[in-house]
Amino acid sequence: MKRRRIAILGSTGSIGRQTLDVISQREDLVPCALAGGGNWKLLAEQAKGFSPEFVAIADERAGARLREELPRGTKLLTGPDAMTELVRESHADVVLSGVVGSAGLKPTLAAIECGATPAIANKETLVMAGAIIIPAARRANLEVLPVDSEHSAIFQCLRAGSRDEVRRVVITGSGGALRGWTASQLGTVSVDDALNHPTWNMGRKITIDSATLINKALEVVEAHWLFGLEPEQIEVVLHPQSIVHSYVEFRDGSVIAQMSPPDMSLPISYALSYPDRIEREAAPLDLPAIGELTFQRCEGRFARAVKLGHEAIRRGGSAGAVLNAANEAAVHAFLTEKISFQQIVEMVEEILNLADQDEEITLEGIMRADAWARNQVAERIGQIA
Amino acid sequence: MKRRRIAILGSTGSIGRQTLDVISQREDLVPCALAGGGNWKLLAEQAKGFSPEFVAIADERAGARLREELPRGTKLLTGPDAMTELVRESHADVVLSGVVGSAGLKPTLAAIECGATPAIANKETLVMAGAIIIPAARRANLEVLPVDSEHSAIFQCLRAGSRDEVRRVVITGSGGALRGWTASQLGTVSVDDALNHPTWNMGRKITIDSATLINKALEVVEAHWLFGLEPEQIEVVLHPQSIVHSYVEFRDGSVIAQMSPPDMSLPISYALSYPDRIEREAAPLDLPAIGELTFQRCEGRFARAVKLGHEAIRRGGSAGAVLNAANEAAVHAFLTEKISFQQIVEMVEEILNLADQDEEITLEGIMRADAWARNQVAERIGQIA
Repeated sequence: MKRRRIAILGSTGSIGRQTLDVISQREDLVPCALAGGGNWKLLAEQAKGFSPEFVAIADERAGARLREELPRGTKLLTGPDAMTELVRESHADVVLSGVVGSAGLKPTLAAIECGATPAIANKETLVMAGAIIIPAARRANLEVLPVDSEHSAIFQCLRAGSRDEVRRVVITGSGGALRGWTASQLGTVSVDDALNHPTWNMGRKITIDSATLINKALEVVEAHWLFGLEPEQIEVVLHPQSIVHSYVEFRDGSVIAQMSPPDMSLPISYALSYPDRIEREAAPLDLPAIGELTFQRCEGRFARAVKLGHEAIRRGGSAGAVLNAANEAAVHAFLTEKISFQQIVEMVEEILNLADQDEEITLEGIMRADAWARNQVAERIGQIA
Repeated sequence: MKRRRIAILGSTGSIGRQTLDVISQREDLVPCALAGGGNWKLLAEQAKGFSPEFVAIADERAGARLREELPRGTKLLTGPDAMTELVRESHADVVLSGVVGSAGLKPTLAAIECGATPAIANKETLVMAGAIIIPAARRANLEVLPVDSEHSAIFQCLRAGSRDEVRRVVITGSGGALRGWTASQLGTVSVDDALNHPTWNMGRKITIDSATLINKALEVVEAHWLFGLEPEQIEVVLHPQSIVHSYVEFRDGSVIAQMSPPDMSLPISYALSYPDRIEREAAPLDLPAIGELTFQRCEGRFARAVKLGHEAIRRGGSAGAVLNAANEAAVHAFLTEKISFQQIVEMVEEILNLADQDEEITLEGIMRADAWARNQVAERIGQIA
């Protein structure tokens, strides 16, 4: 494979660290730029290990501490726009964005403007601003590479046919930490309960999204933008083993599925090497050892949560941004014990249904909708408290 | 899709009839030539329904009866080489061979010589003569299209990567009619027991092959030739539901699987429309309704049968022809109640181990090996009777 320069946004997070693991095994993948969040110590370690040309951290104080630790030749960028500046300066071939929430939006747009291929692990970017990102990538003749395991699965399966031959895609979901809990049990879910995911080891916010299944609602919106699918072409099925990461049904009735043990390093590796596949040392999938794969319809509270994704697509405008922001704020409220587990979906649904069906989609309009939705959550928390 | 002329070898058999069903729903698929086996009445009906330009039947007497029933404009070919003549005269774009056993070999070679794409449903052709067919197709710049559901599955999955990125393929098998039978039960298997396949509705010979699992041994050899795989890259796994038709593991650990309800009309449709996929009206795959997919290691008598395929590849020469012919003769002996069910694999194994490791591979050498193996079975039946 030809040498590729990789910029990682969110290098100290779960996806970022796994991306560096993949890169560390390849001479042809060069980590030229690392942007971290609050954890300046880990970012310093990463900089020492990988000697990137650029390192970015928003917090100026953390930046001052970090600066003393950086290897010679690594340039530091700080401040609120540091991540976007890092993208512009890095001349990366691929910008992998693993930052949580809406923070990945502007740097991803900057990557596209600079002609770098965006690899998107933070689904919020597309949920908020797919209507801006996807046309921008198309104009720049860039593919948007999914890193989410489900969308990477669909992206791989789609190679088995042409886009107009796709009948539907089915996104699988484990059902999260609380699958099988009764309604009365769900009334008393603690933060630890909801964070106890059975198959995937992920960040906190996404683990809660996985328990509510809003994760799948966001993924429905993401699939809409990534693959140009109508809402009725995107289904969700529960699959507790997390082995079949998603599947595609073509118009001849053939279903192509992507499987692997649950490990984000595969979709990361695929995004970094696409369209090639690079050797990865990992235990092979042993289906006889696993024994059985089970599938269940998405019903009850799960269907209610997933429907929010279809609704956001149908409403259009900035509804995706409202869905995402209301959810981020509600999950934060749950993690800080201000609302109950069940209130997350209730609150997001209520706020999505109040959202303006804004016709004009601009970055400013999206940020306004984002702020409005967060404010709606804040008001409701005020009422609850 | 561009209009395609299709010749069907074995149009009155199980695959042939399903091929005509697929064709009957498409204006762009033209059945220009039909070759039948013994059932001249059905062939006459097909000729009336589809008005092919050519019809062939080997038996001269049946031909005489058939001639009276043919529509004006349909030319009849009879005699032992009728099928090969039909291929040469038909100017088909695709020659789909669904004849059972070794009879499909010469017509398939004729198809390649004429520049028609061979679509191969009779795995025996490749098992016997892959060493001749595959290089001939390569010289003619033709792809060999698999119609076997397992190989069609692999062929579809391979689109998700390049050939040198393939680590292994896994062929699935239902385990046939007698999966789960104990050794003592297997001692008293009747023909009806062995023909009672749980998931696939197929011809008699292939249903017995499915019960012995020699079907999978033949498929291992077929996969070797079709996809250029080494024996150690080809595995077999039991999957009783016959939903996952096979899967491919790439070097990054990603597994791509093809699934569909068990129905040969899908692989037939794919072979006729390849590389396009055409609309097919069929119940979609409903995994939640199926509930679970199970997978088991291939062990005991199953592993013994499958190993014959790996052994035939390793021995090379005409070992594939010996495997195929010994099996055809042994299955015939079982169906006519001359040997027991368990003797099929025993006899094939014994004869394969006696086979000359003939270096020079010619059509004559293959036919000699075929005759030798059949003779070996006949001798053994003589001893048994």
